[in-house]
Amino acid sequence: MEHRDILDYTGALLIRDIMVNGERGDIFIDETGTIADTGDGIAEKYRTEAEFIIDGKGSIAMPGLVNTHTHAAMTLLRGYADDMVLQDWLTQRIWPLEAHLTGQDVYWGTKLACLEMIKTGTTAFNDMYFFMEDAARAVDEAGIRAVLSHGFIDLNLPDKRENECRATEKLVSSIKSMNNRRIRAAVGPHAIYTVSPEGLNWCADFAASEKIGTHIHLSETEKEVQDCISQYGKRPACHLDDCGILTPSTIAAHCCWLDEDECALMGKRNVNISHNPASNMKLATHRAMPYHWLKAAGVNVCLGTDGCASNNNIDMFEEMKTAALLQKFFWNDPTVLPAPEALAMATSNGARALSTGTGSLTTGAPADIILISTRTACNIPLHNQTSNLVYACSGSSVDTTICNGRVLMHERHVLNEEEVLNGSAEAAIQLVRRSRS
Amino acid sequence: MEHRDILDYTGALLIRDIMVNGERGDIFIDETGTIADTGDGIAEKYRTEAEFIIDGKGSIAMPGLVNTHTHAAMTLLRGYADDMVLQDWLTQRIWPLEAHLTGQDVYWGTKLACLEMIKTGTTAFNDMYFFMEDAARAVDEAGIRAVLSHGFIDLNLPDKRENECRATEKLVSSIKSMNNRRIRAAVGPHAIYTVSPEGLNWCADFAASEKIGTHIHLSETEKEVQDCISQYGKRPACHLDDCGILTPSTIAAHCCWLDEDECALMGKRNVNISHNPASNMKLATHRAMPYHWLKAAGVNVCLGTDGCASNNNIDMFEEMKTAALLQKFFWNDPTVLPAPEALAMATSNGARALSTGTGSLTTGAPADIILISTRTACNIPLHNQTSNLVYACSGSSVDTTICNGRVLMHERHVLNEEEVLNGSAEAAIQLVRRSRS
Repeated sequence: MEHRDILDYTGALLIRDIMVNGERGDIFIDETGTIADTGDGIAEKYRTEAEFIIDGKGSIAMPGLVNTHTHAAMTLLRGYADDMVLQDWLTQRIWPLEAHLTGQDVYWGTKLACLEMIKTGTTAFNDMYFFMEDAARAVDEAGIRAVLSHGFIDLNLPDKRENECRATEKLVSSIKSMNNRRIRAAVGPHAIYTVSPEGLNWCADFAASEKIGTHIHLSETEKEVQDCISQYGKRPACHLDDCGILTPSTIAAHCCWLDEDECALMGKRNVNISHNPASNMKLATHRAMPYHWLKAAGVNVCLGTDGCASNNNIDMFEEMKTAALLQKFFWNDPTVLPAPEALAMATSNGARALSTGTGSLTTGAPADIILISTRTACNIPLHNQTSNLVYACSGSSVDTTICNGRVLMHERHVLNEEEVLNGSAEAAIQLVRRSRS
Repeated sequence: MEHRDILDYTGALLIRDIMVNGERGDIFIDETGTIADTGDGIAEKYRTEAEFIIDGKGSIAMPGLVNTHTHAAMTLLRGYADDMVLQDWLTQRIWPLEAHLTGQDVYWGTKLACLEMIKTGTTAFNDMYFFMEDAARAVDEAGIRAVLSHGFIDLNLPDKRENECRATEKLVSSIKSMNNRRIRAAVGPHAIYTVSPEGLNWCADFAASEKIGTHIHLSETEKEVQDCISQYGKRPACHLDDCGILTPSTIAAHCCWLDEDECALMGKRNVNISHNPASNMKLATHRAMPYHWLKAAGVNVCLGTDGCASNNNIDMFEEMKTAALLQKFFWNDPTVLPAPEALAMATSNGARALSTGTGSLTTGAPADIILISTRTACNIPLHNQTSNLVYACSGSSVDTTICNGRVLMHERHVLNEEEVLNGSAEAAIQLVRRSRS
């Protein structure tokens, strides 16, 4: 079949003769984009219903990956500034460039991020940035799932806080009116050092009243902890708890410097935590998220890439490996975060954190599925499929990406790839030009 | 042109309109496999001499990567055992399987490794393992460069030492008789905890008399340091120095636990050091090689993946990023090991360590060149080419791999790829089967 045909197709779909949940079988996806059936020999039953049939021979099916912390449009800043001390990096390079960002830039940056995610097997992401209506437009077109939040920063200024509240309300209303089940809004209080207690309280109340999630940075650096103790007399997680932010709908990113009591608190509140190992290493946080304490506390730990300015890609395969390696290295135990747990972080745990209903290949789940060839060096030999996926493969091993039953990549072809590469490259060039004029 | 045609071709070659050394230009490779000329507009001059012309538009040319520490045939053990404590991992899983290895297994494992290297842009590697005549046969067929050493392990037993000396002599003689300028022999004393001082002395003398290099593991774990101090009353680097092993032709792998004085000694002796960050993280060495001390001591620091049992791939792009990230994280400074230095480790420094003459795209150098597309997400935008190569791209960004003037991969096609995948997969299955019977 032609790539264009299957990439344009919106009906029922059959994936035949593939490794699914550890056994050889078929997957039938109905016209609503739901996994309607899986198993050995079901192909015959659904052959007439499915216009398109994908031959899965020699491939593994797995759930689309879920990136639980990123700033998608920062793809435009990929490689713009690296290898610098955090404060210089922010004040001399990142912030001055971001000051010139437009909604159209965020649209193109998010388009590029979605393309990169589709090409590396990610089908859902949790985003925090600015001009998020433009991000929503990009996600809508790209065909993947996202939870989008406006980065709420009030710097303890009442006027700024008012603006941020209105901007948050506007985004939530705008996204709800899109009525697209792939795209949802969240509240995005940036962090305890950029948002006042009043701002945090407002975010907590607003998230509860709108029944939406919350996305926040937490305990990324040691300085954040020390400053919090100086200012509020308590550690960051306790401060957030007192502001009502710690709920089962909250995703807290980084969490490098949580102590054991804070980990227990996160478990008690059923908060979801997004580990961001590559970013933490690149920016030298000097401490790895305490996975073993969080696991003991029953916390749902998931995985994120952070933005491209601090990673500099959004390949979740790479992130799985980095997570497993960093945890072993820092906590001095090669048995910490074994491959099956790293894979769960990037799939089922992330899906649970974002309430997408995805993350497993079971009947009734939305069809967010990626196909990975076993005919590549990273899957030879195939002693252990999970080990290969986590430690040996990269996002380029993904052949086919399906989100909500729609084929977004087939044999590595994506619709309009050239247009996205050209548009985002040009947006980045113009952004730098504006910042220098 | 047909992929097969250019992959079979052995004559002069012209690469036109490519980014080379930061400028747009052409590269002419003569029929001996040497870079004969580079520059803007030289294409016209050489058009008639070159039967094949590669259109480099939209691509970047860079030197083929050099992997300075691996055990290539361990691709057969990819994913066989992970997430275990080192001693259990070795004694319960790796050694029992290796006990059943045959020369034919090493041939297939090395074939698979060479394929993976070609597909990820590595054109030379430094290998230590067993049945190395079979490894040499695989490298000869694959078309890349290697320095091969027999892993010399005497366990302080005189009889075993004699056997290892003879095996080393036999390998060196066998490789010299191949008379293939891509393949050289080295002496491979495994480590101070597996080779007696007498064995180390013999290796040092033999390497000097044969004018070949030495490849050794050094200070990978804290235990190695403690045991060395207990047994010999000195730290590992000093012990090696007393045995004559530290020379400008020596590559010492790992070096996680060197102290500042040992780093100075390595500089004084002009030893080359291979950093293996992914393996060190996965096996939880708990300390990163002290790059800043080695740099201050003027040591030539290069990069290696280690074997697939402890990585689990041999993608040097991934290793560059892991190196830059680990150094920043462990040594608590985001300015340590910036992208240009990580790139040099994987190219010019590695080439210097192996004396291949490669590692730069200059007239007179052997043509070990890889072409990377800028029309992929990891190179959009292109604010900084070096940053993208180190932090954003993976080995899958490589389109074309040339070694010694021969095109080994063109637009990701490699000759006989299916045959190598099938042969190595089957060898791995049979190896496990034998170990269980």
